[in-house]
Amino acid sequence: MNSLERLIQEIARLPGLGKKSATRIAYHLLAGEALEAQRLGNLLQGLHEAIRPCSLCGAFTEEDPCPICSDRGRDHATICVVEQPQDVAVMEASREFQGIYHVLGGVIAPIEGVGPGDLAILSLLQRARNGQVREVIIATNPTVEGDTTALYVARQLREQTGVSVTRLALGLPVGADLEYADRLTLARSLRGRTSLGDDT
Amino acid sequence: MNSLERLIQEIARLPGLGKKSATRIAYHLLAGEALEAQRLGNLLQGLHEAIRPCSLCGAFTEEDPCPICSDRGRDHATICVVEQPQDVAVMEASREFQGIYHVLGGVIAPIEGVGPGDLAILSLLQRARNGQVREVIIATNPTVEGDTTALYVARQLREQTGVSVTRLALGLPVGADLEYADRLTLARSLRGRTSLGDDT
Repeated sequence: MNSLERLIQEIARLPGLGKKSATRIAYHLLAGEALEAQRLGNLLQGLHEAIRPCSLCGAFTEEDPCPICSDRGRDHATICVVEQPQDVAVMEASREFQGIYHVLGGVIAPIEGVGPGDLAILSLLQRARNGQVREVIIATNPTVEGDTTALYVARQLREQTGVSVTRLALGLPVGADLEYADRLTLARSLRGRTSLGDDT
Repeated sequence: MNSLERLIQEIARLPGLGKKSATRIAYHLLAGEALEAQRLGNLLQGLHEAIRPCSLCGAFTEEDPCPICSDRGRDHATICVVEQPQDVAVMEASREFQGIYHVLGGVIAPIEGVGPGDLAILSLLQRARNGQVREVIIATNPTVEGDTTALYVARQLREQTGVSVTRLALGLPVGADLEYADRLTLARSLRGRTSLGDDT
C-alpha cells in the first residue's frame, strides 16, 4: 500500500467519513499546497502533547486547570455534569451557563461493559462535598444510557452530599414544528408544560 | 486560538466538512490514542514528498513514471483523457480499461479564468503524435465545462494528429429508475440507443 492509500485508509477511520469522502479529502490535500497538508500534519502530531484533560473537570485544555475551572468570575457553586469533553464546548456556546463543569467521560452502558466505576463519578462526589457547591445540573444526553446515568449520579449525590440535583428540561426544540415532533418528546413537553407567564 | 481550535479550523477547510463535523473529528482524535493522531500527522507531513504527479500522464504516484505508464502489459495505443488525478483511480476501479491515461488538470472554464493553456493539452498532443497511439478516449465529466473541454481537445487532436477520438457514452446509470432520470440524461440515452443484441 502506498502513502496515498494509507492516508485514505486513516482518514476513512475518522467519524462520519467513508472511503469516498476520505479519497476526496486526500486528493484535495495532494492537489493543494504542500504547506496546507504540513500545517494539518503538525497540528495532529502535537495534538496530544498540547491538549490534555483538565485535572479538575476533565474538559480538554492547554492549561491545567482549564480556563473555566480557574476563572474566579464563574459561579463555582454550580456544577454542570456532561458526558463528553466536547459537551463543554456545546454548553459554552449557549452562553447561558455561568458555572463550572464536570465531565463523566461516558455513560453507564452495561452491554458495552461500562459501569459506574469507569466514569468520573467518585471525583464528582468529592467535588460536590467541598462545601462550596450548592447545585449539580445533570446534562447527560436524553437517551436510555444518559437517563440511566443521570438517575444513578443523582442518587449518589443525594445520598452522599447535601447539594440539590437538577436535570436539563426536555421538550420541543425551539423553532420546531409540532407535526414533526416525535411522540416521546411531545409527551415529555406536555408533562413538563409551564404556565404562560412563567417563562421569560 | 489554541491548538484544538486551530485543528478544528484546518479540518473544517477540507472538502465536504463543516465546523460541526470538524469538531467531531478533532475530539475523536483527542479522545483516541496519541499514536493514531501522530500516524495521520506523519502521513500528511510527508504527503507531498512521497507523492508527485507522473511526468508522463499527470496521475499522482510514488514512482515516476507511474506504475500504469511503466506497465508494458497495458495497451499504450489507447489514452484515456481525464480531468483530475483522482479520475484515474475511478476509471481503474471499473477494471474495464486496459490503456494508459492523461490528466488534463482541470477543464476549460473562462469564468474562472481557466483557458486551454492552463491544461495539459500540448503534452497530450505530443503523446498522441508519437506514432504508437491509435485512440484517445475523452472521459471528462458530462458537464458544460467538461463537454466544452472534450470538444476543444477533440478538435485539436483531429487537426494535429491522426488518432481516432472517442467519448464515454452518456445514458442511464445501471440500476437507475426511469422515473428518477433527469430529462437531459433520458434524451441522451434515447439518442444513443443501441440495437438489442449489440450489447454484451
